[in-house]
Amino acid sequence: MSAEDTPIARAQSDQGMGALTSAGYEPALAAAAEPWLKNATEAAPMLVLISGMAGARQGWLEAPYAPVPGPPLDPAKFVAPPTQSPRLRVRIAHGLAQHNPPDVMRGEETQIAGFLAAFPDFEGVICLPGTHSKWAEIASGRVTQFHTAMTGEIFALFSEHSVLRHSLQGDSTVKSDSETLGDCFARAVHEAYEAPAASWLTLFRIRAQSLLAGVTAPEAREMLSGMLIGAEIAALRPVWQGRRLAVIGAPALTARYSDALTQVGAVNETFDVERATLAGLSTLRAVVH
Amino acid sequence: MSAEDTPIARAQSDQGMGALTSAGYEPALAAAAEPWLKNATEAAPMLVLISGMAGARQGWLEAPYAPVPGPPLDPAKFVAPPTQSPRLRVRIAHGLAQHNPPDVMRGEETQIAGFLAAFPDFEGVICLPGTHSKWAEIASGRVTQFHTAMTGEIFALFSEHSVLRHSLQGDSTVKSDSETLGDCFARAVHEAYEAPAASWLTLFRIRAQSLLAGVTAPEAREMLSGMLIGAEIAALRPVWQGRRLAVIGAPALTARYSDALTQVGAVNETFDVERATLAGLSTLRAVVH
Repeated sequence: MSAEDTPIARAQSDQGMGALTSAGYEPALAAAAEPWLKNATEAAPMLVLISGMAGARQGWLEAPYAPVPGPPLDPAKFVAPPTQSPRLRVRIAHGLAQHNPPDVMRGEETQIAGFLAAFPDFEGVICLPGTHSKWAEIASGRVTQFHTAMTGEIFALFSEHSVLRHSLQGDSTVKSDSETLGDCFARAVHEAYEAPAASWLTLFRIRAQSLLAGVTAPEAREMLSGMLIGAEIAALRPVWQGRRLAVIGAPALTARYSDALTQVGAVNETFDVERATLAGLSTLRAVVH
Repeated sequence: MSAEDTPIARAQSDQGMGALTSAGYEPALAAAAEPWLKNATEAAPMLVLISGMAGARQGWLEAPYAPVPGPPLDPAKFVAPPTQSPRLRVRIAHGLAQHNPPDVMRGEETQIAGFLAAFPDFEGVICLPGTHSKWAEIASGRVTQFHTAMTGEIFALFSEHSVLRHSLQGDSTVKSDSETLGDCFARAVHEAYEAPAASWLTLFRIRAQSLLAGVTAPEAREMLSGMLIGAEIAALRPVWQGRRLAVIGAPALTARYSDALTQVGAVNETFDVERATLAGLSTLRAVVH
Protein backbone atom coordinates (compact mmCIF):
# COMPACT_ATOMS: atom_id res chain seq x y z
CA MET A 1 0.00 0.00 0.00
CA SER A 2 1.56 3.27 -1.07
CA ALA A 3 1.38 6.47 0.99
CA GLU A 4 -1.42 7.76 -1.23
CA ASP A 5 -3.56 4.78 -0.19
CA THR A 6 -3.48 5.80 3.47
CA PRO A 7 -6.87 6.96 4.79
CA ILE A 8 -7.15 10.75 4.88
CA ALA A 9 -10.48 10.70 6.71
CA ARG A 10 -12.84 8.08 8.08
CA ALA A 11 -16.45 7.75 9.18
CA GLN A 12 -18.48 4.86 10.49
CA SER A 13 -22.12 4.01 10.95
CA ASP A 14 -24.05 1.19 12.60
CA GLN A 15 -26.46 1.15 9.65
CA GLY A 16 -25.74 -2.12 7.83
CA MET A 17 -27.52 -5.03 6.16
CA GLY A 18 -29.27 -5.98 9.39
CA ALA A 19 -30.85 -2.51 9.75
CA LEU A 20 -31.42 -1.29 6.19
CA THR A 21 -33.76 -2.06 3.30
CA SER A 22 -32.35 -1.60 -0.19
CA ALA A 23 -33.77 1.95 -0.37
CA GLY A 24 -32.11 2.87 2.93
CA TYR A 25 -28.53 2.46 1.75
CA GLU A 26 -28.12 5.70 -0.18
CA PRO A 27 -29.36 7.95 2.67
CA ALA A 28 -27.15 6.05 5.16
CA LEU A 29 -24.13 6.45 2.86
CA ALA A 30 -24.91 10.11 2.21
CA ALA A 31 -25.18 10.77 5.96
CA ALA A 32 -21.84 9.09 6.69
CA ALA A 33 -20.02 10.67 3.72
CA GLU A 34 -21.70 14.08 3.90
CA PRO A 35 -18.50 16.14 4.60
CA TRP A 36 -16.81 14.72 1.50
CA LEU A 37 -19.81 14.50 -0.80
CA LYS A 38 -20.22 18.28 -0.91
CA ASN A 39 -17.04 18.52 -3.01
CA ALA A 40 -18.47 16.16 -5.64
CA THR A 41 -20.40 17.36 -8.67
CA GLU A 42 -22.53 15.78 -11.36
CA ALA A 43 -19.62 16.19 -13.78
CA ALA A 44 -17.11 14.81 -11.27
CA PRO A 45 -19.10 12.44 -9.07
CA MET A 46 -17.56 10.75 -6.03
CA LEU A 47 -16.58 7.12 -6.70
CA VAL A 48 -17.68 4.92 -3.79
CA LEU A 49 -16.33 1.35 -3.78
CA ILE A 50 -18.15 -1.01 -1.46
CA SER A 51 -17.46 -4.59 -0.45
CA GLY A 52 -19.26 -6.94 1.89
CA MET A 53 -22.90 -7.52 2.65
CA ALA A 54 -24.21 -4.48 0.73
CA GLY A 55 -23.83 -6.83 -2.25
CA ALA A 56 -25.84 -9.67 -0.68
CA ARG A 57 -29.34 -10.56 -1.83
CA GLN A 58 -30.71 -8.76 1.27
CA GLY A 59 -28.34 -5.77 0.73
CA TRP A 60 -28.38 -2.68 -1.49
CA LEU A 61 -28.10 -4.48 -4.84
CA GLU A 62 -27.12 -8.09 -5.31
CA ALA A 63 -23.63 -8.48 -6.78
CA PRO A 64 -23.62 -12.13 -7.94
CA TYR A 65 -20.80 -14.37 -6.76
CA ALA A 66 -17.78 -14.79 -9.03
CA PRO A 67 -16.59 -18.38 -9.45
CA VAL A 68 -13.65 -20.14 -7.78
CA PRO A 69 -11.04 -20.91 -9.06
CA GLY A 70 -10.55 -17.32 -10.13
CA PRO A 71 -9.09 -13.95 -9.13
CA PRO A 72 -10.28 -12.66 -5.75
CA LEU A 73 -11.75 -9.52 -7.31
CA ASP A 74 -12.90 -9.00 -10.88
CA PRO A 75 -13.74 -5.33 -11.63
CA ALA A 76 -16.01 -6.40 -14.50
CA LYS A 77 -18.28 -8.10 -11.97
CA PHE A 78 -18.92 -5.12 -9.71
CA VAL A 79 -22.52 -3.86 -9.82
CA ALA A 80 -23.73 -0.26 -9.98
CA PRO A 81 -26.82 0.52 -7.88
CA PRO A 82 -28.89 3.43 -9.21
CA THR A 83 -28.64 6.49 -6.97
CA GLN A 84 -30.92 9.49 -6.42
CA SER A 85 -27.92 11.80 -6.21
CA PRO A 86 -26.02 12.41 -9.47
CA ARG A 87 -22.96 13.22 -7.38
CA LEU A 88 -22.53 9.57 -6.35
CA ARG A 89 -20.98 6.82 -8.48
CA VAL A 90 -21.35 3.64 -6.43
CA ARG A 91 -19.83 0.24 -7.28
CA ILE A 92 -20.34 -2.87 -5.15
CA ALA A 93 -17.91 -5.79 -5.16
CA HIS A 94 -19.05 -9.37 -5.80
CA GLY A 95 -18.43 -12.28 -3.45
CA LEU A 96 -16.94 -15.66 -4.37
CA ALA A 97 -18.78 -18.97 -4.72
CA GLN A 98 -17.32 -22.44 -4.89
CA HIS A 99 -19.42 -25.35 -6.07
CA ASN A 100 -17.46 -28.36 -4.87
CA PRO A 101 -17.60 -28.42 -1.93
CA PRO A 102 -20.28 -25.71 -1.77
CA ASP A 103 -19.06 -22.53 -0.09
CA VAL A 104 -19.46 -18.76 -0.31
CA MET A 105 -17.67 -15.63 0.89
CA ARG A 106 -18.47 -11.92 0.71
CA GLY A 107 -16.02 -9.28 1.93
CA GLU A 108 -13.00 -11.52 2.43
CA GLU A 109 -12.30 -11.59 -1.33
CA THR A 110 -11.48 -7.87 -1.05
CA GLN A 111 -9.08 -8.50 1.85
CA ILE A 112 -7.40 -11.27 -0.15
CA ALA A 113 -7.04 -8.93 -3.13
CA GLY A 114 -5.46 -6.28 -0.91
CA PHE A 115 -3.00 -8.72 0.62
CA LEU A 116 -2.05 -9.98 -2.85
CA ALA A 117 -1.56 -6.38 -4.02
CA ALA A 118 1.05 -6.07 -1.25
CA PHE A 119 2.54 -9.55 -1.86
CA PRO A 120 1.88 -10.38 -5.53
CA ASP A 121 4.05 -13.50 -5.45
CA PHE A 122 2.34 -15.05 -2.41
CA GLU A 123 1.59 -18.77 -2.86
CA GLY A 124 -0.01 -20.68 -0.01
CA VAL A 125 -2.93 -20.27 2.36
CA ILE A 126 -4.60 -17.17 3.79
CA CYS A 127 -6.56 -17.55 7.03
CA LEU A 128 -9.14 -14.80 7.65
CA PRO A 129 -10.52 -15.35 11.17
CA GLY A 130 -13.87 -13.84 12.10
CA THR A 131 -17.54 -14.63 12.59
CA HIS A 132 -17.13 -17.05 9.71
CA SER A 133 -13.42 -17.79 9.32
CA LYS A 134 -12.30 -18.28 5.72
CA TRP A 135 -9.23 -20.23 4.67
CA ALA A 136 -8.29 -19.48 1.06
CA GLU A 137 -5.75 -21.39 -1.01
CA ILE A 138 -3.81 -19.08 -3.33
CA ALA A 139 -1.82 -19.91 -6.47
CA SER A 140 -0.68 -17.48 -9.21
CA GLY A 141 -2.76 -14.65 -7.77
CA ARG A 142 -5.97 -16.71 -7.90
CA VAL A 143 -8.15 -18.30 -5.21
CA THR A 144 -8.10 -22.00 -6.11
CA GLN A 145 -10.23 -23.31 -3.22
CA PHE A 146 -11.61 -22.05 0.10
CA HIS A 147 -13.15 -23.33 3.31
CA THR A 148 -15.41 -21.77 5.98
CA ALA A 149 -15.48 -22.49 9.71
CA MET A 150 -18.23 -20.80 11.73
CA THR A 151 -15.92 -20.42 14.72
CA GLY A 152 -16.69 -16.82 15.69
CA GLU A 153 -20.43 -17.36 15.38
CA ILE A 154 -20.24 -20.59 17.39
CA PHE A 155 -18.34 -18.77 20.15
CA ALA A 156 -21.06 -16.10 20.25
CA LEU A 157 -23.86 -18.69 20.20
CA PHE A 158 -22.43 -20.56 23.16
CA SER A 159 -21.62 -17.35 25.06
CA GLU A 160 -25.03 -15.80 24.60
CA HIS A 161 -27.58 -18.57 24.16
CA SER A 162 -26.32 -21.91 25.52
CA VAL A 163 -26.22 -23.33 29.04
CA LEU A 164 -22.51 -22.41 28.98
CA ARG A 165 -23.48 -18.73 29.20
CA HIS A 166 -23.86 -19.17 32.97
CA SER A 167 -20.18 -20.13 33.10
CA LEU A 168 -18.93 -17.68 30.46
CA GLN A 169 -20.73 -14.50 31.51
CA GLY A 170 -20.72 -14.95 35.28
CA ASP A 171 -19.22 -12.17 37.33
CA SER A 172 -16.12 -13.79 38.74
CA THR A 173 -15.22 -13.01 42.33
CA VAL A 174 -11.86 -14.70 41.84
CA LYS A 175 -9.50 -12.66 39.69
CA SER A 176 -7.62 -14.49 36.94
CA ASP A 177 -4.17 -13.24 36.01
CA SER A 178 -3.11 -13.05 32.38
CA GLU A 179 -0.70 -15.96 32.75
CA THR A 180 -3.49 -18.23 34.02
CA LEU A 181 -5.73 -17.10 31.15
CA GLY A 182 -2.97 -17.72 28.61
CA ASP A 183 -2.52 -21.21 30.06
CA CYS A 184 -6.26 -21.94 29.79
CA PHE A 185 -6.23 -20.90 26.13
CA ALA A 186 -3.06 -22.80 25.24
CA ARG A 187 -4.16 -25.99 27.01
CA ALA A 188 -7.55 -25.90 25.26
CA VAL A 189 -5.86 -25.36 21.88
CA HIS A 190 -3.58 -28.31 22.56
CA GLU A 191 -6.38 -30.67 23.62
CA ALA A 192 -8.65 -29.78 20.72
CA TYR A 193 -5.85 -29.94 18.18
CA GLU A 194 -4.64 -33.34 19.41
CA ALA A 195 -8.14 -34.86 19.64
CA PRO A 196 -10.52 -32.76 17.54
CA ALA A 197 -13.16 -35.50 17.39
CA ALA A 198 -13.51 -35.33 21.18
CA SER A 199 -14.05 -31.57 21.20
CA TRP A 200 -17.84 -32.03 21.13
CA LEU A 201 -17.42 -33.53 24.61
CA THR A 202 -15.14 -30.78 25.87
CA LEU A 203 -17.88 -28.19 25.51
CA PHE A 204 -20.01 -29.37 28.41
CA ARG A 205 -16.88 -29.96 30.46
CA ILE A 206 -16.45 -26.18 30.60
CA ARG A 207 -19.83 -25.96 32.34
CA ALA A 208 -19.02 -28.85 34.67
CA GLN A 209 -15.67 -27.33 35.61
CA SER A 210 -17.29 -24.07 36.61
CA LEU A 211 -19.89 -25.96 38.69
CA LEU A 212 -17.43 -28.36 40.33
CA ALA A 213 -13.97 -26.80 40.16
CA GLY A 214 -14.54 -23.06 40.52
CA VAL A 215 -13.34 -22.12 37.04
CA THR A 216 -13.92 -18.36 36.58
CA ALA A 217 -15.81 -16.77 33.70
CA PRO A 218 -12.66 -15.29 32.05
CA GLU A 219 -10.97 -18.69 32.31
CA ALA A 220 -14.01 -20.44 30.84
CA ARG A 221 -14.02 -17.98 27.93
CA GLU A 222 -10.36 -18.74 27.19
CA MET A 223 -11.11 -22.47 27.35
CA LEU A 224 -13.97 -22.16 24.86
CA SER A 225 -11.96 -19.88 22.56
CA GLY A 226 -8.94 -22.23 22.63
CA MET A 227 -11.09 -25.30 22.11
CA LEU A 228 -12.90 -23.84 19.09
CA ILE A 229 -9.76 -22.39 17.48
CA GLY A 230 -7.80 -25.59 18.15
CA ALA A 231 -10.54 -27.69 16.56
CA GLU A 232 -10.70 -25.32 13.56
CA ILE A 233 -6.94 -25.45 13.01
CA ALA A 234 -7.03 -29.26 13.27
CA ALA A 235 -9.87 -29.48 10.75
CA LEU A 236 -7.86 -27.33 8.33
CA ARG A 237 -4.54 -29.09 8.83
CA PRO A 238 -4.70 -30.86 5.44
CA VAL A 239 -5.02 -27.39 3.88
CA TRP A 240 -2.22 -25.45 5.62
CA GLN A 241 0.33 -28.12 6.47
CA GLY A 242 3.66 -27.54 4.73
CA ARG A 243 2.50 -24.35 2.99
CA ARG A 244 3.15 -20.65 3.42
CA LEU A 245 0.46 -19.28 5.74
CA ALA A 246 -0.78 -15.73 6.37
CA VAL A 247 -3.39 -14.63 8.94
CA ILE A 248 -5.42 -11.51 8.08
CA GLY A 249 -7.82 -10.15 10.68
CA ALA A 250 -8.55 -7.69 13.44
CA PRO A 251 -5.45 -7.32 15.65
CA ALA A 252 -6.62 -9.15 18.83
CA LEU A 253 -8.19 -12.03 16.95
CA THR A 254 -5.24 -12.30 14.59
CA ALA A 255 -2.88 -12.56 17.57
CA ARG A 256 -5.04 -15.34 19.03
CA TYR A 257 -4.95 -17.37 15.79
CA SER A 258 -1.28 -16.68 15.20
CA ASP A 259 -0.41 -17.85 18.73
CA ALA A 260 -2.49 -21.02 18.36
CA LEU A 261 -0.95 -21.78 14.94
CA THR A 262 2.56 -21.19 16.24
CA GLN A 263 1.82 -23.45 19.20
CA VAL A 264 0.98 -26.36 16.87
CA GLY A 265 4.04 -25.73 14.72
CA ALA A 266 2.49 -23.72 11.89
CA VAL A 267 4.84 -20.87 10.93
CA ASN A 268 2.67 -17.90 10.00
CA GLU A 269 2.82 -14.23 9.07
CA THR A 270 0.11 -11.68 9.98
CA PHE A 271 -1.45 -8.73 8.17
CA ASP A 272 -3.95 -6.11 9.34
CA VAL A 273 -7.46 -6.56 7.97
CA GLU A 274 -8.25 -2.87 7.53
CA ARG A 275 -5.09 -2.32 5.55
CA ALA A 276 -5.98 -5.35 3.41
CA THR A 277 -9.52 -4.12 2.77
CA LEU A 278 -8.43 -0.61 1.79
CA ALA A 279 -5.66 -1.93 -0.45
CA GLY A 280 -8.10 -4.36 -2.09
CA LEU A 281 -10.50 -1.59 -3.02
CA SER A 282 -7.93 1.05 -3.91
CA THR A 283 -6.13 -1.22 -6.39
CA LEU A 284 -9.38 -1.30 -8.34
CA ARG A 285 -10.03 2.43 -8.25
CA ALA A 286 -8.72 3.01 -11.75
CA VAL A 287 -10.27 -0.03 -13.42
CA VAL A 288 -13.84 -0.17 -12.11
CA HIS A 289 -16.28 1.30 -14.61
CA MET B 1 -41.74 -52.88 35.36
CA SER B 2 -44.58 -54.79 36.93
CA ALA B 3 -48.24 -54.12 36.17
CA GLU B 4 -48.59 -52.16 39.39
CA ASP B 5 -45.94 -49.70 38.17
CA THR B 6 -48.05 -48.73 35.18
CA PRO B 7 -49.36 -45.14 35.38
CA ILE B 8 -52.99 -45.00 36.55
CA ALA B 9 -53.32 -41.28 35.90
CA ARG B 10 -51.11 -38.52 34.58
CA ALA B 11 -50.94 -34.74 34.59
CA GLN B 12 -48.48 -32.28 33.14
CA SER B 13 -47.62 -28.65 33.58
CA ASP B 14 -45.35 -26.17 31.83
CA GLN B 15 -44.27 -24.78 35.21
CA GLY B 16 -40.65 -25.89 35.61
CA MET B 17 -37.28 -24.59 36.75
CA GLY B 18 -37.25 -21.87 34.10
CA ALA B 19 -40.55 -20.41 35.32
CA LEU B 20 -40.60 -21.03 39.09
CA THR B 21 -38.87 -19.67 42.15
CA SER B 22 -38.32 -22.11 45.02
CA ALA B 23 -41.54 -20.97 46.71
CA GLY B 24 -43.53 -21.55 43.52
CA TYR B 25 -42.98 -25.31 43.35
CA GLU B 26 -45.49 -26.44 45.96
CA PRO B 27 -48.42 -24.47 44.47
CA ALA B 28 -47.49 -25.74 40.97
CA LEU B 29 -47.35 -29.32 42.24
CA ALA B 30 -50.59 -28.94 44.19
CA ALA B 31 -52.35 -27.56 41.10
CA ALA B 32 -51.17 -30.44 38.91
CA ALA B 33 -51.84 -33.15 41.51
CA GLU B 34 -55.04 -31.64 42.92
CA PRO B 35 -57.39 -34.53 41.95
CA TRP B 36 -55.19 -37.06 43.79
CA LEU B 37 -54.12 -34.90 46.70
CA LYS B 38 -57.63 -34.66 48.09
CA ASN B 39 -57.40 -38.34 49.10
CA ALA B 40 -54.27 -37.71 51.17
CA THR B 41 -54.39 -36.84 54.88
CA GLU B 42 -51.95 -35.57 57.45
CA ALA B 43 -51.76 -39.10 58.88
CA ALA B 44 -51.36 -40.65 55.42
CA PRO B 45 -49.68 -38.01 53.29
CA MET B 46 -49.10 -38.47 49.58
CA LEU B 47 -45.50 -39.46 48.77
CA VAL B 48 -44.22 -37.43 45.79
CA LEU B 49 -40.91 -38.56 44.28
CA ILE B 50 -39.27 -36.02 42.00
CA SER B 51 -36.22 -36.21 39.79
CA GLY B 52 -34.60 -33.67 37.51
CA MET B 53 -34.09 -29.95 37.74
CA ALA B 54 -36.30 -29.43 40.81
CA GLY B 55 -33.17 -30.61 42.67
CA ALA B 56 -30.86 -28.09 40.98
CA ARG B 57 -29.48 -25.07 42.82
CA GLN B 58 -32.05 -22.91 40.99
CA GLY B 59 -34.86 -25.45 41.66
CA TRP B 60 -37.10 -26.23 44.64
CA LEU B 61 -34.40 -27.44 47.02
CA GLU B 62 -30.88 -28.36 46.02
CA ALA B 63 -30.25 -32.11 46.17
CA PRO B 64 -26.44 -32.32 46.10
CA TYR B 65 -24.81 -34.55 43.49
CA ALA B 66 -23.89 -38.12 44.49
CA PRO B 67 -20.41 -39.20 43.37
CA VAL B 68 -19.41 -41.40 40.45
CA PRO B 69 -18.42 -44.25 40.55
CA GLY B 70 -21.55 -45.19 42.48
CA PRO B 71 -25.12 -46.42 42.16
CA PRO B 72 -27.32 -44.31 39.88
CA LEU B 73 -29.76 -43.52 42.71
CA ASP B 74 -29.09 -43.56 46.44
CA PRO B 75 -32.29 -43.15 48.50
CA ALA B 76 -30.28 -41.82 51.44
CA LYS B 77 -29.31 -38.81 49.33
CA PHE B 78 -32.80 -37.64 48.42
CA VAL B 79 -33.76 -34.29 50.00
CA ALA B 80 -37.07 -33.34 51.62
CA PRO B 81 -38.28 -29.80 50.88
CA PRO B 82 -40.51 -28.36 53.63
CA THR B 83 -44.14 -28.06 52.48
CA GLN B 84 -47.01 -25.84 53.61
CA SER B 85 -49.45 -28.72 53.24
CA PRO B 86 -49.13 -31.54 55.78
CA ARG B 87 -50.72 -33.86 53.20
CA LEU B 88 -47.59 -33.80 51.01
CA ARG B 89 -44.43 -35.79 51.62
CA VAL B 90 -41.99 -34.68 48.89
CA ARG B 91 -38.60 -36.24 48.16
CA ILE B 92 -36.26 -34.98 45.44
CA ALA B 93 -33.60 -37.16 43.80
CA HIS B 94 -29.94 -36.14 43.64
CA GLY B 95 -27.94 -35.87 40.42
CA LEU B 96 -24.54 -37.42 39.75
CA ALA B 97 -21.18 -35.64 39.62
CA GLN B 98 -17.91 -36.92 38.26
CA HIS B 99 -14.67 -35.16 39.07
CA ASN B 100 -12.28 -36.51 36.46
CA PRO B 101 -13.11 -35.48 33.82
CA PRO B 102 -15.58 -33.01 35.34
CA ASP B 103 -19.19 -33.80 34.44
CA VAL B 104 -22.68 -33.65 35.93
CA MET B 105 -26.13 -35.12 35.26
CA ARG B 106 -29.55 -34.57 36.81
CA GLY B 107 -32.56 -36.63 35.75
CA GLU B 108 -30.75 -39.26 33.70
CA GLU B 109 -29.57 -41.07 36.87
CA THR B 110 -33.24 -41.94 37.49
CA GLN B 111 -33.64 -43.31 33.96
CA ILE B 112 -30.50 -45.39 34.38
CA ALA B 113 -31.83 -46.75 37.69
CA GLY B 114 -35.12 -47.69 36.01
CA PHE B 115 -33.41 -49.43 33.14
CA LEU B 116 -31.20 -51.35 35.57
CA ALA B 117 -34.28 -52.32 37.57
CA ALA B 118 -35.58 -53.98 34.39
CA PHE B 119 -32.17 -55.43 33.41
CA PRO B 120 -30.21 -55.86 36.65
CA ASP B 121 -27.40 -57.78 34.96
CA PHE B 122 -26.75 -55.15 32.27
CA GLU B 123 -23.04 -54.43 31.76
CA GLY B 124 -22.02 -51.96 29.09
CA VAL B 125 -22.97 -48.46 27.97
CA ILE B 126 -26.27 -46.57 28.16
CA CYS B 127 -26.78 -43.70 25.72
CA LEU B 128 -29.45 -41.18 26.80
CA PRO B 129 -29.93 -38.77 23.89
CA GLY B 130 -31.48 -35.36 24.54
CA THR B 131 -30.67 -31.68 24.98
CA HIS B 132 -27.51 -32.86 26.71
CA SER B 133 -26.88 -36.48 25.70
CA LYS B 134 -25.37 -38.61 28.44
CA TRP B 135 -23.36 -41.77 27.84
CA ALA B 136 -23.02 -43.81 31.04
CA GLU B 137 -20.72 -46.77 31.54
CA ILE B 138 -22.32 -49.44 33.75
CA ALA B 139 -20.67 -52.25 35.72
CA SER B 140 -22.20 -54.27 38.57
CA GLY B 141 -25.22 -51.98 38.78
CA ARG B 142 -23.04 -48.88 39.24
CA VAL B 143 -22.23 -45.93 37.02
CA THR B 144 -18.46 -46.07 36.66
CA GLN B 145 -17.98 -43.11 34.29
CA PHE B 146 -20.12 -40.84 32.13
CA HIS B 147 -19.81 -38.32 29.30
CA THR B 148 -21.96 -35.42 28.09
CA ALA B 149 -22.43 -34.19 24.51
CA MET B 150 -24.51 -31.02 24.06
CA THR B 151 -25.91 -32.31 20.78
CA GLY B 152 -29.59 -31.44 21.26
CA GLU B 153 -28.78 -27.96 22.51
CA ILE B 154 -26.34 -27.38 19.65
CA PHE B 155 -29.02 -28.41 17.14
CA ALA B 156 -31.43 -25.92 18.71
CA LEU B 157 -28.80 -23.14 18.81
CA PHE B 158 -28.02 -23.51 15.13
CA SER B 159 -31.69 -23.84 14.16
CA GLU B 160 -32.83 -20.80 16.09
CA HIS B 161 -29.92 -18.39 16.42
CA SER B 162 -27.23 -19.02 13.78
CA VAL B 163 -26.97 -17.98 10.15
CA LEU B 164 -28.02 -21.56 9.35
CA ARG B 165 -31.53 -20.73 10.58
CA HIS B 166 -32.25 -19.18 7.17
CA SER B 167 -31.59 -22.61 5.62
CA LEU B 168 -33.19 -24.72 8.36
CA GLN B 169 -36.42 -22.82 8.96
CA GLY B 170 -37.14 -21.65 5.44
CA ASP B 171 -40.51 -22.61 4.02
CA SER B 172 -39.59 -25.04 1.30
CA THR B 173 -41.51 -24.84 -1.94
CA VAL B 174 -39.94 -28.09 -3.09
CA LYS B 175 -41.34 -31.12 -1.25
CA SER B 176 -38.82 -33.62 0.08
CA ASP B 177 -39.92 -37.25 0.22
CA SER B 178 -39.05 -39.38 3.22
CA GLU B 179 -36.52 -41.42 1.25
CA THR B 180 -34.60 -38.27 0.28
CA LEU B 181 -34.68 -37.08 3.88
CA GLY B 182 -33.46 -40.46 5.13
CA ASP B 183 -30.60 -40.30 2.62
CA CYS B 184 -29.64 -36.79 3.79
CA PHE B 185 -29.49 -37.99 7.39
CA ALA B 186 -27.59 -41.19 6.63
CA ARG B 187 -25.05 -39.45 4.39
CA ALA B 188 -24.40 -36.78 7.04
CA VAL B 189 -23.97 -39.46 9.74
CA HIS B 190 -21.50 -41.27 7.51
CA GLU B 191 -19.44 -38.18 6.68
CA ALA B 192 -19.27 -36.94 10.27
CA TYR B 193 -18.49 -40.39 11.65
CA GLU B 194 -15.70 -41.01 9.13
CA ALA B 195 -14.14 -37.55 9.50
CA PRO B 196 -15.36 -36.03 12.78
CA ALA B 197 -12.56 -33.45 12.88
CA ALA B 198 -13.87 -31.96 9.64
CA SER B 199 -17.41 -31.60 10.95
CA TRP B 200 -16.76 -28.00 12.02
CA LEU B 201 -16.41 -27.27 8.30
CA THR B 202 -19.53 -29.17 7.31
CA LEU B 203 -21.74 -26.77 9.27
CA PHE B 204 -21.39 -23.80 6.95
CA ARG B 205 -21.61 -26.12 3.95
CA ILE B 206 -25.26 -26.66 4.86
CA ARG B 207 -25.83 -22.93 4.41
CA ALA B 208 -23.85 -22.83 1.17
CA GLN B 209 -25.76 -25.79 -0.23
CA SER B 210 -29.08 -24.09 0.38
CA LEU B 211 -27.77 -20.90 -1.29
CA LEU B 212 -26.15 -22.61 -4.26
CA ALA B 213 -27.76 -26.02 -4.70
CA GLY B 214 -31.39 -25.56 -3.69
CA VAL B 215 -31.28 -27.82 -0.65
CA THR B 216 -34.68 -27.58 1.12
CA ALA B 217 -35.21 -26.74 4.79
CA PRO B 218 -36.29 -30.30 5.76
CA GLU B 219 -33.23 -31.68 3.94
CA ALA B 220 -30.95 -29.16 5.67
CA ARG B 221 -32.38 -30.16 9.06
CA GLU B 222 -31.65 -33.84 8.37
CA MET B 223 -28.10 -32.91 7.31
CA LEU B 224 -27.49 -30.96 10.51
CA SER B 225 -29.04 -33.69 12.68
CA GLY B 226 -27.02 -36.43 10.98
CA MET B 227 -23.82 -34.41 11.15
CA LEU B 228 -24.17 -33.68 14.87
CA ILE B 229 -25.23 -37.22 15.81
CA GLY B 230 -22.51 -38.75 13.62
CA ALA B 231 -19.88 -36.54 15.24
CA GLU B 232 -21.19 -37.41 18.73
CA ILE B 233 -21.11 -41.15 18.02
CA ALA B 234 -17.57 -40.81 16.64
CA ALA B 235 -16.42 -38.88 19.72
CA LEU B 236 -17.84 -41.63 21.95
CA ARG B 237 -16.50 -44.56 19.93
CA PRO B 238 -13.76 -45.37 22.49
CA VAL B 239 -16.56 -45.69 25.06
CA TRP B 240 -19.09 -47.90 23.24
CA GLN B 241 -16.96 -49.94 20.85
CA GLY B 242 -17.14 -53.69 21.59
CA ARG B 243 -19.59 -53.24 24.48
CA ARG B 244 -23.28 -53.89 25.05
CA LEU B 245 -25.13 -50.69 24.20
CA ALA B 246 -28.63 -49.45 25.10
CA VAL B 247 -30.33 -46.25 23.93
CA ILE B 248 -32.92 -44.72 26.29
CA GLY B 249 -34.86 -41.71 25.09
CA ALA B 250 -38.03 -40.28 23.60
CA PRO B 251 -39.23 -42.56 20.77
CA ALA B 252 -38.41 -40.39 17.71
CA LEU B 253 -35.00 -39.33 18.99
CA THR B 254 -34.18 -42.86 20.14
CA ALA B 255 -34.97 -44.18 16.64
CA ARG B 256 -32.66 -41.55 15.13
CA TYR B 257 -29.74 -42.53 17.40
CA SER B 258 -30.43 -46.24 17.02
CA ASP B 259 -30.44 -45.94 13.21
CA ALA B 260 -27.20 -43.95 13.22
CA LEU B 261 -25.50 -46.40 15.58
CA THR B 262 -26.66 -49.37 13.52
CA GLN B 263 -25.37 -47.64 10.38
CA VAL B 264 -21.86 -47.45 11.83
CA GLY B 265 -21.96 -51.04 13.03
CA ALA B 266 -22.92 -50.54 16.67
CA VAL B 267 -25.46 -53.18 17.71
CA ASN B 268 -27.87 -51.54 20.13
CA GLU B 269 -31.08 -52.11 22.05
CA THR B 270 -33.63 -49.38 22.84
CA PHE B 271 -35.80 -48.58 25.86
CA ASP B 272 -38.51 -45.98 26.38
CA VAL B 273 -37.48 -43.04 28.55
CA GLU B 274 -40.81 -42.57 30.32
CA ARG B 275 -40.89 -46.21 31.30
CA ALA B 276 -37.31 -45.89 32.56
CA THR B 277 -38.08 -42.77 34.62
CA LEU B 278 -41.18 -44.26 36.25
CA ALA B 279 -39.40 -47.53 37.00
CA GLY B 280 -36.44 -45.61 38.47
CA LEU B 281 -38.66 -43.73 40.90
CA SER B 282 -41.04 -46.57 41.73
CA THR B 283 -38.25 -48.94 42.71
CA LEU B 284 -37.36 -46.44 45.44
CA ARG B 285 -40.90 -45.95 46.71
CA ALA B 286 -40.47 -48.28 49.64
CA VAL B 287 -36.99 -47.21 50.68
CA VAL B 288 -37.05 -43.40 50.54
CA HIS B 289 -37.54 -41.90 54.00
